[in-house]
Amino acid sequence: MSSNQVPTGFRFAGVESGIKPSRKPDLSLIFGDSELVAAGVYTTNQIVAAPVLLCRQRTPSGAIRAVVTNSGNANACTGSRGERDANRMCQLVADRLGIQEDQVLVMSTGIIGQHLPMNCVEAGIKQAAQSLADDQQAFDAAAQAILTTDQGQKTVHHSIEFDGQQVRISAMAKGAGMIAPNMATMLAVVMTDAKLEPSQAQRLLHQAADRSFNCVSVDGHMSTNDTMLLLASGATGVTLTDEREQQFVSVLEEACVELAKQLVADGEGASHVMQIAVRGAVSDADADQIARAIGESPLVKTAAKGNDPNWGRIVSAAGYAGPTIQPQKTSLTLCGTVIYQDGGPVEFDAAVLSQRMAGQIELQIQLVVGDGDGKATRWASDLTEEYVRFNSEYTT
Amino acid sequence: MSSNQVPTGFRFAGVESGIKPSRKPDLSLIFGDSELVAAGVYTTNQIVAAPVLLCRQRTPSGAIRAVVTNSGNANACTGSRGERDANRMCQLVADRLGIQEDQVLVMSTGIIGQHLPMNCVEAGIKQAAQSLADDQQAFDAAAQAILTTDQGQKTVHHSIEFDGQQVRISAMAKGAGMIAPNMATMLAVVMTDAKLEPSQAQRLLHQAADRSFNCVSVDGHMSTNDTMLLLASGATGVTLTDEREQQFVSVLEEACVELAKQLVADGEGASHVMQIAVRGAVSDADADQIARAIGESPLVKTAAKGNDPNWGRIVSAAGYAGPTIQPQKTSLTLCGTVIYQDGGPVEFDAAVLSQRMAGQIELQIQLVVGDGDGKATRWASDLTEEYVRFNSEYTT
Repeated sequence: MSSNQVPTGFRFAGVESGIKPSRKPDLSLIFGDSELVAAGVYTTNQIVAAPVLLCRQRTPSGAIRAVVTNSGNANACTGSRGERDANRMCQLVADRLGIQEDQVLVMSTGIIGQHLPMNCVEAGIKQAAQSLADDQQAFDAAAQAILTTDQGQKTVHHSIEFDGQQVRISAMAKGAGMIAPNMATMLAVVMTDAKLEPSQAQRLLHQAADRSFNCVSVDGHMSTNDTMLLLASGATGVTLTDEREQQFVSVLEEACVELAKQLVADGEGASHVMQIAVRGAVSDADADQIARAIGESPLVKTAAKGNDPNWGRIVSAAGYAGPTIQPQKTSLTLCGTVIYQDGGPVEFDAAVLSQRMAGQIELQIQLVVGDGDGKATRWASDLTEEYVRFNSEYTT
Repeated sequence: MSSNQVPTGFRFAGVESGIKPSRKPDLSLIFGDSELVAAGVYTTNQIVAAPVLLCRQRTPSGAIRAVVTNSGNANACTGSRGERDANRMCQLVADRLGIQEDQVLVMSTGIIGQHLPMNCVEAGIKQAAQSLADDQQAFDAAAQAILTTDQGQKTVHHSIEFDGQQVRISAMAKGAGMIAPNMATMLAVVMTDAKLEPSQAQRLLHQAADRSFNCVSVDGHMSTNDTMLLLASGATGVTLTDEREQQFVSVLEEACVELAKQLVADGEGASHVMQIAVRGAVSDADADQIARAIGESPLVKTAAKGNDPNWGRIVSAAGYAGPTIQPQKTSLTLCGTVIYQDGGPVEFDAAVLSQRMAGQIELQIQLVVGDGDGKATRWASDLTEEYVRFNSEYTT
């Protein structure tokens, strides 16, 4: 038994297989002691990487045993050979672990349009299978091996008690946009030792994704490889009644939101995370569309970077976002200060507010766009010179 | 009679009124010797500046006499006082020139949320009315006075001959996005000495705008003040038969495209203009949406800046744009080199192509997304560190 934070019923490994020229860890393996319930949500980009095509077919499931992930190469835009390589990765894992090939899920992230160096992959899988362990160190090694240009490991650990029994929710992710050399790929694996049904896992994952990762705007560029998995080992034997499910979902969402914020905050030189809360819209979908337009506006992002309380950029982004707003009932609060009210500017001390912005990692942007019931919250990075430098200096 | 390139029937002035603290020209006046036919297209942002509200009511018209424009202050988000100020600007012009207040159109650009310094405006209008002239120098002075942070004057001059009679089309504009401190405002005035009907002018302007300014992506941030006017003096007496109208429209569009490209190229540090031609989509609207997603992707823009032939970013932007594409029939040509064909990468010399990109101002991006008939072309700037620096250092 592990005496650590990670859910029971899983073993982990992260190794250096040689896919990355930098010789950093690049092959990660998660193995269930018994069959895992698995659910997935995937990129909606029409250009889809081979591993995503494969995982889509295999989830939801009640019989997954392993997830293999490589970083350094996205196996995207690689045609039928790419599909064969993704299947081969699963086969190699299955052979090593004595399970069925269709019990394996696969994720890839990194450079696109290049074929996987399968000799490295094969050696890495062999090494990973030999180093599987159920402790925190092994979990962290697996979390390290899915990173690309992330500045640091992204993991969260939560637990809930149900009638004295502890259920764990842990997750690992790799970063998006701001920091990605190529495709801004977001990968995340959430693991729990609660006992879920496949359809239940799928439903809970969708809900959590919609309120976390789907609310994150880095640069609006959706990857060919974006994947988020939920794995349940059931090792605690704890099932979720309706009431327990409520509690479970709220912790699951909290964990996902934390991880999503880590992604946004990680960016090359990202200095702020904007939390954009829109209310008063006609519908939640409208509010979300407005929050997205604000979070993706380069003028808003650069103002945030410069600690500039520039309400004009925010309000006007709401004005062009698409959904109907009520300009005369539009008000804006920035970091707790009302700076625009009912369609007109409010006097405020810009120097003081700018200083407050400079002192905070998270900038609270609260925008009211009318008297409707629609509301939504999104998180977005600011836009820095480092982002441009990083993404323009990277060479195909 | 003027012996210059500018259309007959107009007089121009540009003066320094003191609105701009920098003491640069900031008040521009265009005056028709007789009644002008005027048409306008305006921002679709729901947050609309006072001068736009006023112009919308007055166009199309057959009886406009003057257009007054100030830079340095956008008179946006200024409530009822802003509307009074916009009307007052027209009244001041009317008084000076002996015309009716409702024969005057008004445009403003600059800082938003601040009231116009009407004493400066009044003095500037007086001075401008006294310095009106019909020559190139006066035209250029008017063109200078509408600029904000533009790096240079944006003007074009074209002419057409109809049965030995010369008709002129000249235009002036101020820049968008990349360079704007605040609202990315785009203003343009196109003038001709052909004789148009108001409804005809409106129709031709819409068509020209759709194929030029509406095809420009700088940062996707639509301003509260965007305005494009077409003024026809009729001074040549030349009317446009159906056949002549065809010729006229093609020159009008050419002039507008030229001006739109000047806007994109002007950006603080913008190193490239991307010309994004999409074809094979289900409809023209789909093709345009795809071209827009590509032109607004920060990852594509930074790749362009870095002369990086990164087809993955372009193809995947098409994949998330929204419209249905055919991934297996998707091909990409960059600066004349096919680098992605029928859903898969093509071998090419990245170093050679990168060098070719570095040597060109305009990068030709040709994307085929299927076998449909839909096609569209857009122009977009790249994204540079200078853009971020400029837009984050500007303080409200």
